[in-house]
Amino acid sequence: MDKKSFVVQMNGKGKVHGNSTVNPKSMNGAAVNVKGVHHVNVNGTLYPARTKSRRQRWDVKPSEMANNTLNPIRAIVDGMKLTPNPDKAMIALSIGDPTVFGNLPTDDAVRQAMKDAIDSQKYNGYAPSVGYLKSRQAVANFYSCPEAPLEAEDVILTSGCSQAIDLAISVLCNPGDNILVPCPGFSLYKTLAVSMGIKVKLYNLLPQNSWEMDLQHMESLIDERTSCLIVTNPSNPCGSVFSQEHLLQILKVAQRHCLPILADEIYSDMVFPGCSSPSMASLSSNVPILSCGGLAKRWLVPGWRMGWILIHDRNNVFGSEIRQGLVKLSQRILGACSIIQGALESILNNTPQSFYNQTISFLKSNSEICYNELSNVPGLNPIMPSGAMYLMVGVDMEHFPEFENDVDFTQRLVTEQSVFCLPASAFEYPNYFRIVVTVPEELMLEACGRMREFCQRHYRPPSRESNDLDK
Amino acid sequence: MDKKSFVVQMNGKGKVHGNSTVNPKSMNGAAVNVKGVHHVNVNGTLYPARTKSRRQRWDVKPSEMANNTLNPIRAIVDGMKLTPNPDKAMIALSIGDPTVFGNLPTDDAVRQAMKDAIDSQKYNGYAPSVGYLKSRQAVANFYSCPEAPLEAEDVILTSGCSQAIDLAISVLCNPGDNILVPCPGFSLYKTLAVSMGIKVKLYNLLPQNSWEMDLQHMESLIDERTSCLIVTNPSNPCGSVFSQEHLLQILKVAQRHCLPILADEIYSDMVFPGCSSPSMASLSSNVPILSCGGLAKRWLVPGWRMGWILIHDRNNVFGSEIRQGLVKLSQRILGACSIIQGALESILNNTPQSFYNQTISFLKSNSEICYNELSNVPGLNPIMPSGAMYLMVGVDMEHFPEFENDVDFTQRLVTEQSVFCLPASAFEYPNYFRIVVTVPEELMLEACGRMREFCQRHYRPPSRESNDLDK
Repeated sequence: MDKKSFVVQMNGKGKVHGNSTVNPKSMNGAAVNVKGVHHVNVNGTLYPARTKSRRQRWDVKPSEMANNTLNPIRAIVDGMKLTPNPDKAMIALSIGDPTVFGNLPTDDAVRQAMKDAIDSQKYNGYAPSVGYLKSRQAVANFYSCPEAPLEAEDVILTSGCSQAIDLAISVLCNPGDNILVPCPGFSLYKTLAVSMGIKVKLYNLLPQNSWEMDLQHMESLIDERTSCLIVTNPSNPCGSVFSQEHLLQILKVAQRHCLPILADEIYSDMVFPGCSSPSMASLSSNVPILSCGGLAKRWLVPGWRMGWILIHDRNNVFGSEIRQGLVKLSQRILGACSIIQGALESILNNTPQSFYNQTISFLKSNSEICYNELSNVPGLNPIMPSGAMYLMVGVDMEHFPEFENDVDFTQRLVTEQSVFCLPASAFEYPNYFRIVVTVPEELMLEACGRMREFCQRHYRPPSRESNDLDK
Repeated sequence: MDKKSFVVQMNGKGKVHGNSTVNPKSMNGAAVNVKGVHHVNVNGTLYPARTKSRRQRWDVKPSEMANNTLNPIRAIVDGMKLTPNPDKAMIALSIGDPTVFGNLPTDDAVRQAMKDAIDSQKYNGYAPSVGYLKSRQAVANFYSCPEAPLEAEDVILTSGCSQAIDLAISVLCNPGDNILVPCPGFSLYKTLAVSMGIKVKLYNLLPQNSWEMDLQHMESLIDERTSCLIVTNPSNPCGSVFSQEHLLQILKVAQRHCLPILADEIYSDMVFPGCSSPSMASLSSNVPILSCGGLAKRWLVPGWRMGWILIHDRNNVFGSEIRQGLVKLSQRILGACSIIQGALESILNNTPQSFYNQTISFLKSNSEICYNELSNVPGLNPIMPSGAMYLMVGVDMEHFPEFENDVDFTQRLVTEQSVFCLPASAFEYPNYFRIVVTVPEELMLEACGRMREFCQRHYRPPSRESNDLDK
């Protein structure tokens, strides 16, 4: 043990018993050993050191919660060597942010609503922790439907959909519980859950069935400590949209096991024409649902951090307790910026339908371009999305023997072609990568062309031997 | 056990061994008992019920964290009967929000910065979880001083000062640890800590010493599990400002016990003329400090939720680990609204000094009015503040025998005089109440007049007998 450990503690009381072997006055503040007991010297008097003192040296370590807050996307991307080809301009198809290329501005009505809220000077003070009543009412009106009516009290405004998901998991789950999470799926569920000591069980989505849930697999994971089922629809990273029939099947399983649902519906209504996407709550008369959403995607302002939870109780299963729990949790850090809350009613009511239609039409067109371009690239298996802003591409890794996995594949795609797609290992789904389809059309085409070139260079057709072995 | 418990589970496998005493086809779905084993009837075939199935009935309860998220102010205020006197207009001196009366608007430069950020269309997307680099740099420049220099990387932007405090506590403390918190003090520290299983130890502030810390008491509370010392300066609820000498004494104790400091400096620079208020970090060369602040108070926009942590490391005690821990925690829900982040540099650089001066001059003038008016009210002992926007008033409860405590006192003040002050029991400090001094001057005078009338009516002077006993 280091001598320093015994210095410093000056407020101990007591006298020295026995003789010191040192001259006290010469070593003010120093630690000395008197008959086996550590003492400190204060102006010539020796005091026994309080060895039970808290800490004698600095030792500040991050908490377990900080250590356990893991971001799989960062863990993978930060470990990649992303050195673009200097002869080709970088095209990033990796970031789930529709604003990065500047081709998808929000609507004028949205910006005007914000400026009006600022000029009104009415929204500088604290809003209630669950949001202004009139803003909650506006959200309730916007999402209410006869099958799933909503009142203002059913809405909790949050700092982005992330906080909505945080509060929903926090209110439903205790440490040691587990939650069911889609695979591939948005990584935040796991990040939040694990940081709180909640376990994550991944249920499979089936690429061959347009990423429908493997219901049997999901059901097999349910146990006594399962406290909620997370359903992401439309899906990030898949861009898939569940049919009404499939949603009803999911609800049936939840009903059978009395399992509440956290419906991540941040991409709700971002569905291509011809495809319908009812909310889960509108199909359920028995399963209580916390639906999380926000302005981020559909209004193209993810940085504004305006999210919400819609509380769809059924038969008073949530009751006042879950509602009160959400209110209490909302008081920890308060929610969304008051200016945006003040603008919310106007944003929801005054944004023209044409704005939404244009966005969706663009996303569908870009998805089709991407899907068509990549469909006949050797070794790639794109899966056509039906909504949201993503497209997943399977890679026949056996035909790319140079690359170890999807991370390696996408890394080399940057090195050679300056195109970056997120390896789906970030979604716990290896041998796929995710493409964000919000880039301008010409860049989408250019990126697809480069991917084709890349695959053509590295693709190895099935060898005759392996064909023989197949027989 | 209820029979229902055994129904519903249809996907178990296996055949019935032995004979059933019931006709299977007549009871589809019902639970039956076959030789002591519970079975369910599916289309005439009996399957053993999976008694290990998760749940056979709805039982959704809020988590322990939700249950343990306690807001002492709400707990007390919600329990009060606040029925104003219908003949007198209500004057609320209870809410720590400088915007509620409309007499303290933010500066034009602040609003213009916001509108410019909206019009630029550059701040709609996701900001990094710790904030835009240029906004962090702007905060670093604003608060940097030779004794405590700051770089952009020392700044983490958060959703209000509440999230700054949340992240700071979260990174430094594990469940079972304890933190030292001022009494009276801002209730959020306890709300956050207790919800995370962190214990709170209250150290006394001394009203007779202008609310300086009882250093001996504070030091006596330190033990092996103490993971940070929270210092609120200037103080909510006291309005006190520590002298440089006192701050140095506090730092000495922290240094002695190797205890990092969470400095809640949201009211920094809101200090009356003639009183100086150095930041804790500017006085420390050995004690690492996380300083929490934000736009809320000084820029009069608490609802905007723009906060920050300033990381003042010393001798690499925090090191990269605490920094990384804060970065990781920031990724849970992301931080402040991107529009405000985009406006931040301009807000900090373009708000004229005259704006700050006017606010402080108003707060000082109102504090003096309130202090002078209440100083000669029988039974009240106001303590003159030196900063922030609060004033604490002691109540000689023995002279108000009608009232049980400060909660009772302030409740009756509403009933009779329509003046609401927050009972300091909300800050764990009974027999005081807190006055917010941001109301317009005429209302402050009116409120003080009513408090005088109230006290004059209810004050009971010391009786002769008790005087005799004193001898």
